Amino acid sequence: MDGHRIALDAMGGDHAPHVTLQGAREALEAWPGLFLYLVGDEAVLRPALAKHGFSAALLARAEVVHASQVVSMEDKATSILKEKKDSSIRIAAQLVREGKAHGMVSMGHTGAAMVASSLVIGKLEGVDRPALASVMPNTQGGPTVLLDVGANVDCRADHIAQFAVMGSVYAEEVLGLERPRVGILSVGEEDGKGTDVTKDASAMLRELEIRFEGNAEGRDIWNGNFDVIACDGFVGNVVLKSSEALAEGIIGGLKDSFMESAITKLAGLMARPALRRFKQRLDYTEYGGAPLLGVKGVSIIGHGRSDHKAVRNAIRAALRAVEHRLHERIQERVAQLLPQD
Amino acid sequence: MDGHRIALDAMGGDHAPHVTLQGAREALEAWPGLFLYLVGDEAVLRPALAKHGFSAALLARAEVVHASQVVSMEDKATSILKEKKDSSIRIAAQLVREGKAHGMVSMGHTGAAMVASSLVIGKLEGVDRPALASVMPNTQGGPTVLLDVGANVDCRADHIAQFAVMGSVYAEEVLGLERPRVGILSVGEEDGKGTDVTKDASAMLRELEIRFEGNAEGRDIWNGNFDVIACDGFVGNVVLKSSEALAEGIIGGLKDSFMESAITKLAGLMARPALRRFKQRLDYTEYGGAPLLGVKGVSIIGHGRSDHKAVRNAIRAALRAVEHRLHERIQERVAQLLPQD
Repeated sequence: MDGHRIALDAMGGDHAPHVTLQGAREALEAWPGLFLYLVGDEAVLRPALAKHGFSAALLARAEVVHASQVVSMEDKATSILKEKKDSSIRIAAQLVREGKAHGMVSMGHTGAAMVASSLVIGKLEGVDRPALASVMPNTQGGPTVLLDVGANVDCRADHIAQFAVMGSVYAEEVLGLERPRVGILSVGEEDGKGTDVTKDASAMLRELEIRFEGNAEGRDIWNGNFDVIACDGFVGNVVLKSSEALAEGIIGGLKDSFMESAITKLAGLMARPALRRFKQRLDYTEYGGAPLLGVKGVSIIGHGRSDHKAVRNAIRAALRAVEHRLHERIQERVAQLLPQD
Repeated sequence: MDGHRIALDAMGGDHAPHVTLQGAREALEAWPGLFLYLVGDEAVLRPALAKHGFSAALLARAEVVHASQVVSMEDKATSILKEKKDSSIRIAAQLVREGKAHGMVSMGHTGAAMVASSLVIGKLEGVDRPALASVMPNTQGGPTVLLDVGANVDCRADHIAQFAVMGSVYAEEVLGLERPRVGILSVGEEDGKGTDVTKDASAMLRELEIRFEGNAEGRDIWNGNFDVIACDGFVGNVVLKSSEALAEGIIGGLKDSFMESAITKLAGLMARPALRRFKQRLDYTEYGGAPLLGVKGVSIIGHGRSDHKAVRNAIRAALRAVEHRLHERIQERVAQLLPQD
């Protein structure tokens, strides 16, 4: 049991356990230092392992951990605390809490994964609200970290300032960006623009040793002018869901345009490799999942509709975060930069 | 001076007065019932009229109104109240206030146009905060009205409820949508999701005789599930700016993809008419400008970078709003539906 140990909620997501097991196998093949706990109903998982091509060599680095329940989309996020105590999400979090795993990955119920991370793994000291960070592909070809996108509504200024600090650590340690440029999402570039909350959060960040560059606007999420943009979870969630739908609508409309006539169909065929490369740049599965920052371990939360590639990349994101001791770095910076009074 | 009289801020916008005059001429040619006040420096505008092909017949339905100043992007929104009293934006609003014009159109400084509309034209009785409404093209091929996008930060629940009512009147009267489906932007479909402000606004709207369908999510801005979505001006502004940048980024990336090789260039050429039709669906210039709802007259505020087509369509939007007596309809509904206590 050497190496980095990740607990995978093998039952979470729209296409579980097939895509989770396929993604798990690919991850084990790709990263020799990885050990995976596959959490879920063993009556389902054990027979499926062979079918998904887990060799004896791979099985030496994987262990099925039984969980009798699954959190469904109809369940409440807090169901893991009562009715769904033996759910795969909760058991995965339990493995992290007990120190058996260094991190967890779930493509299941986002709210339940957040509750499991915050309450079972537990929050870092000094962090009131863990924040879900989404890595957006910007038009410069790099990543921009937007957080919180996890529906933390009614945030105070110090919450948003903490989001900014945690996002900055993530961008630096895990994404490898040097001295990441940090902004606060607002309605204008000028310092005077925004709500009392954004203005107070800005004032706090100006005192800190991070590279704070003031207000970011909506367009800055995409243009690469900032590496990290902090906002309350209401705005972040709305922007994330709206952006996903807009991008899908545009790509879908484009596909329809290529179906118009024989000529456009031929054109589509000719342009297909270029279009595929283009689409890849927008592809959320590239980053695999969103890290929940501010908990005592690594937690990566993916889309319910994730495919095997997204699962593999979410495991990679967890692995990198574990390698960089992400939560310890965040703990140091939060303690150092935001002294509690 | 029969017909519908619109005051055009001929000096407002990045490409004024050329695109404003060209758009004005096209509008006069297209709609015989239109009379235009062209507001701006007469030393600039008069010589330009002939160059832009204004015939004697068109000039019978247009009048230059002199304004010696222009609000620049560096000016504050409130500059029209002091230093820029003789600016084209303010004079255009003055014409509406005096009843000479029924509505105004400006592609200039958005904040200044909002201040001129709210303070010079004046707010409707019972309306605390006029709201800027953006008409977004949804993937069903119809319009979805999102408001407020005008950076009204820190909104109360009754402000958002008013935005919803005003947006509903606009969708019904001007866009011709029957019994428009109205939602409040939040972080989940369920009633319990959101901030105290969105929940209180929802409770108010449930009592009213509009077709209120509860919480809308970020994705609903694009999928055509709602006709009107109300939100505070912070979220609306962020979503609007972010969406513009994302759509441009995708279209730009797509263009690059077609430049990759001789084959993709040929493909792009073959698909061009289809791609043009597709792009048109996303085109903000189709709607021309955003109506500012809640003022005692019609006010349409366009993008600074508007081209002549956007100017013409903004004038059309103003004309339609005037024909439908938009502000009177809004006044009736606000009085009826939101009794002041």
